[in-house]
Amino acid sequence: MTPNRLRLIVSCPDQVGIVAAVSGFLAEQGGSITEASQHCDPVTGQFFMRYEIDAASLPFGSAELRAQFTPIAERFAMQWQVHDASRPRRVVPLVSRMEHCLGDILARWRSGELVMDIPCIISNHEDMRDLVEWHGITFHHVPVDPQNKAKAFARLNELLDAHQAEVVVLARYMQILPPDLCQAYAGRVINIHHSFLPSFVGAKPYQRAFDRGVKLIGATCHYVTDQLDEGPIIEQDVIRVRHDHSVDDLVRLGRDVERTVLSRGLRYHLEDRVLIHANKTVVFA
Amino acid sequence: MTPNRLRLIVSCPDQVGIVAAVSGFLAEQGGSITEASQHCDPVTGQFFMRYEIDAASLPFGSAELRAQFTPIAERFAMQWQVHDASRPRRVVPLVSRMEHCLGDILARWRSGELVMDIPCIISNHEDMRDLVEWHGITFHHVPVDPQNKAKAFARLNELLDAHQAEVVVLARYMQILPPDLCQAYAGRVINIHHSFLPSFVGAKPYQRAFDRGVKLIGATCHYVTDQLDEGPIIEQDVIRVRHDHSVDDLVRLGRDVERTVLSRGLRYHLEDRVLIHANKTVVFA
Amino acid sequence: MTPNRLRLIVSCPDQVGIVAAVSGFLAEQGGSITEASQHCDPVTGQFFMRYEIDAASLPFGSAELRAQFTPIAERFAMQWQVHDASRPRRVVPLVSRMEHCLGDILARWRSGELVMDIPCIISNHEDMRDLVEWHGITFHHVPVDPQNKAKAFARLNELLDAHQAEVVVLARYMQILPPDLCQAYAGRVINIHHSFLPSFVGAKPYQRAFDRGVKLIGATCHYVTDQLDEGPIIEQDVIRVRHDHSVDDLVRLGRDVERTVLSRGLRYHLEDRVLIHANKTVVFA
Amino acid sequence: MTPNRLRLIVSCPDQVGIVAAVSGFLAEQGGSITEASQHCDPVTGQFFMRYEIDAASLPFGSAELRAQFTPIAERFAMQWQVHDASRPRRVVPLVSRMEHCLGDILARWRSGELVMDIPCIISNHEDMRDLVEWHGITFHHVPVDPQNKAKAFARLNELLDAHQAEVVVLARYMQILPPDLCQAYAGRVINIHHSFLPSFVGAKPYQRAFDRGVKLIGATCHYVTDQLDEGPIIEQDVIRVRHDHSVDDLVRLGRDVERTVLSRGLRYHLEDRVLIHANKTVVFA
Repeated sequence: MTPNRLRLIVSCPDQVGIVAAVSGFLAEQGGSITEASQHCDPVTGQFFMRYEIDAASLPFGSAELRAQFTPIAERFAMQWQVHDASRPRRVVPLVSRMEHCLGDILARWRSGELVMDIPCIISNHEDMRDLVEWHGITFHHVPVDPQNKAKAFARLNELLDAHQAEVVVLARYMQILPPDLCQAYAGRVINIHHSFLPSFVGAKPYQRAFDRGVKLIGATCHYVTDQLDEGPIIEQDVIRVRHDHSVDDLVRLGRDVERTVLSRGLRYHLEDRVLIHANKTVVFA
Repeated sequence: MTPNRLRLIVSCPDQVGIVAAVSGFLAEQGGSITEASQHCDPVTGQFFMRYEIDAASLPFGSAELRAQFTPIAERFAMQWQVHDASRPRRVVPLVSRMEHCLGDILARWRSGELVMDIPCIISNHEDMRDLVEWHGITFHHVPVDPQNKAKAFARLNELLDAHQAEVVVLARYMQILPPDLCQAYAGRVINIHHSFLPSFVGAKPYQRAFDRGVKLIGATCHYVTDQLDEGPIIEQDVIRVRHDHSVDDLVRLGRDVERTVLSRGLRYHLEDRVLIHANKTVVFA
Repeated sequence: MTPNRLRLIVSCPDQVGIVAAVSGFLAEQGGSITEASQHCDPVTGQFFMRYEIDAASLPFGSAELRAQFTPIAERFAMQWQVHDASRPRRVVPLVSRMEHCLGDILARWRSGELVMDIPCIISNHEDMRDLVEWHGITFHHVPVDPQNKAKAFARLNELLDAHQAEVVVLARYMQILPPDLCQAYAGRVINIHHSFLPSFVGAKPYQRAFDRGVKLIGATCHYVTDQLDEGPIIEQDVIRVRHDHSVDDLVRLGRDVERTVLSRGLRYHLEDRVLIHANKTVVFA
Repeated sequence: MTPNRLRLIVSCPDQVGIVAAVSGFLAEQGGSITEASQHCDPVTGQFFMRYEIDAASLPFGSAELRAQFTPIAERFAMQWQVHDASRPRRVVPLVSRMEHCLGDILARWRSGELVMDIPCIISNHEDMRDLVEWHGITFHHVPVDPQNKAKAFARLNELLDAHQAEVVVLARYMQILPPDLCQAYAGRVINIHHSFLPSFVGAKPYQRAFDRGVKLIGATCHYVTDQLDEGPIIEQDVIRVRHDHSVDDLVRLGRDVERTVLSRGLRYHLEDRVLIHANKTVVFA
């Protein structure tokens, strides 16, 4: 049984004294820091910090921590959050007909590797219903009519609301979310794109990788913005391919990269390891 | 001392009986095949083959092998070559001011890992002269005047002719070769581009990789065509980068990938392992 | 729909004329070779060959191919097999309480990536029953009493016989098979060991990797012999670890390597890409 | 021109308040922390910390920093050091007849990637003299007579003293240092072993890797202790090999891994990124 942790996530303009103020405050309360990461971007002068604190070492919980920390946060003009690691985030995967990414997420959820609640899974197809329901998770089928996508996305939005989704995962969903939905969940919609971005933005990346004759193919986990495949990148990886691999081989080999990269990116997000700044990420992996 | 090899390289439309004809011909002559690679592209129906043959097992040398093999080659409409592995190719590196790729090539040449002759090294700067001359290699300084590049490339062409260059290696040369030179040496000019193509074609790829926030950077070794960074890819590789790496760090980390990828690609070329087809390569690595 | 293939697998002492004889025989029958791999071990002088042949290009099936090929095989003292790629091998996974390797194999089986039949899955625990039965596969619980292992392994043997197992996969089974079983299924029992062999043979490899402070951990897929963790290696891979990874982190990171390496090794085996020679393998991947 | 940095390196038993005390002290002096890394080993309860501080932000230099920091260090029972990044360490490579590791170190030294002084290079053979002297570095030939090694190592020791060596790098030196020398330079002798330790400790690791049929080979950079190949590991890496690679191919492929791993490990050491604890390292890479 892992002892509980609180996570303090901070981003602010850099100046002397931030670490001293934060760590001094925590030390006064007896707070034991179990993991500490910090970074200052020399280009923008922005400072980033992530502390994991042994919850049992503090005389109060996350609510009181927030209250007491507020003056420090204001002094340094921080954007900041306190997360209780024991409270699982509510994650809604959207999926189409392919199983590999969803299956990987579900397996890691069952094993406890990904700490989250999955209130439901939404798909524009019925293919994944059995798998989802066998896991005891509600399955919503929301077909997307190409002539009238607005209706589908309104329904999707309703379901996300109803299930109080905190994170949305596009596990090879194959549909482009409308801009208002992207904005409503800014920094909380995670996509897996089946290429090593910025190569092969858009459709059919494996076919295009094959046609170009690249020697490695990849996958990219990123936050969704209203610019297709242009959002902040969380994680990427590649695998070697050869001249005797067909497009189908690329698809097969790529599946392993996609699911690994998506699950890794999702884990970083759920553990509050990803800080977005401009269109880039700081990842305290 | 490695025993000598002859290499038979074949490309032709696929049909039943090619392997039988080639291997049957060799077997009749007592030819011992020490390495055999073949591939049929299911998309284009093109067949590719590379045999290494123990030269001592044949009753004749490469000239007679060519003569005797001609009827078979004609029967199957082959593009084909016979190379004698004991005859080093004449390779001319072009270089600018950066040492890492050239230094790597020279070290592998001295150790015997890259089997080639280097009749001269040509640069638009003087920086590499000492290193080159210490190796006992002729150094030609051919400055490139941005206002009159034609003159420089005419001189370059002359030198390549005079030195009977068979292969030209752009070891971070940083100049774009004119189309006529690209065509004259088609399939024999090898470039290293400091990005994972097709990402970041053109100038300043590390800066652009940094700006995009990619999590891996790479390098690409390819044949030069008159389309910038669009030629057939021979080899690629990548290295992981983090949010706390600056552009200078990317440049530093990238150097290791560039030199490794270029030297690997050059070795494949010198060992006749690369067959070009359309804008792609078959690499019998 | 992939067109059907026959696979001809050959191992014999090297001599001039083998390729000519085999390819000549196939060409006479109009056989179209779709994939060809060969290797000669310069140390032992043993020759290895794997041909995939378009079944539709031959005037006969695998039985007649065997009959007609026999004289050639005898002439060169070949060990050889003909496999019909359309006939799935019967594979029995043995598993204990961990799901990651079994789950991976089942997912690849469902997607068609691993072509095989799974007549049953056998475990010394009940944990995997639900997962297995949801897949419509028979689950056998064969508890292993540490005081009387012989009884369990006799039952195991019976089940393998009854289900006509052709391949046995130890998907983190955590029990050592008795020597007679290893011998009965020599070259057909595939194990995943959770270390980069030959490092950390035996128990608790992740703990020992942690204690030694290695910077990469790995997994090894190998054929089981009666020498623990000493059998021919089919496939290996590694993943980077850091000083701030605990043993539990190593276990978590290692799971991804284990399942990938095991599934890759199993695929190579099922596609007849692995030839055993002495205590090593030739893998025509 | 990089602005100068001071590095504060700390190791002590963990307790609440260390970070607050250190960062508070620095903030009071106006010290700007440009890079911060910390780690607490949950097994041993040991705390590790590395701060890079902008030297220009402090009102004093490294000597005064040491004086003022001493009370804090004593309060927490710290082992600690302050290093001035602008002062290059004095590094003496020992080498035998192989060039690849030494050449790599020299190239990185010339390019400024490795910040160090090289007062001399010592070898038991003459082979590297030309290369070393071309770099303007003193070359000492100290032959090692197998019948009387003590004499050679006494001479070696003298030379290290005379040149005030701070770090000794065994760049494929191929001789085992005597225990007294290991102890005199404990934590400052860096070796490259040409295997992925703990596999293939001792002689001929490539041959043994070949014989075992491993699918990846590696190299290990570690601190030398009087236990052969058992010292704390700094860095490791691997490269994939195939059944058709000979032992010579393994040696060739391994060279690239060796030099990369050694140069990376050496850089970590020179940048004070490596903290030794028990027989393991914390590497703030």
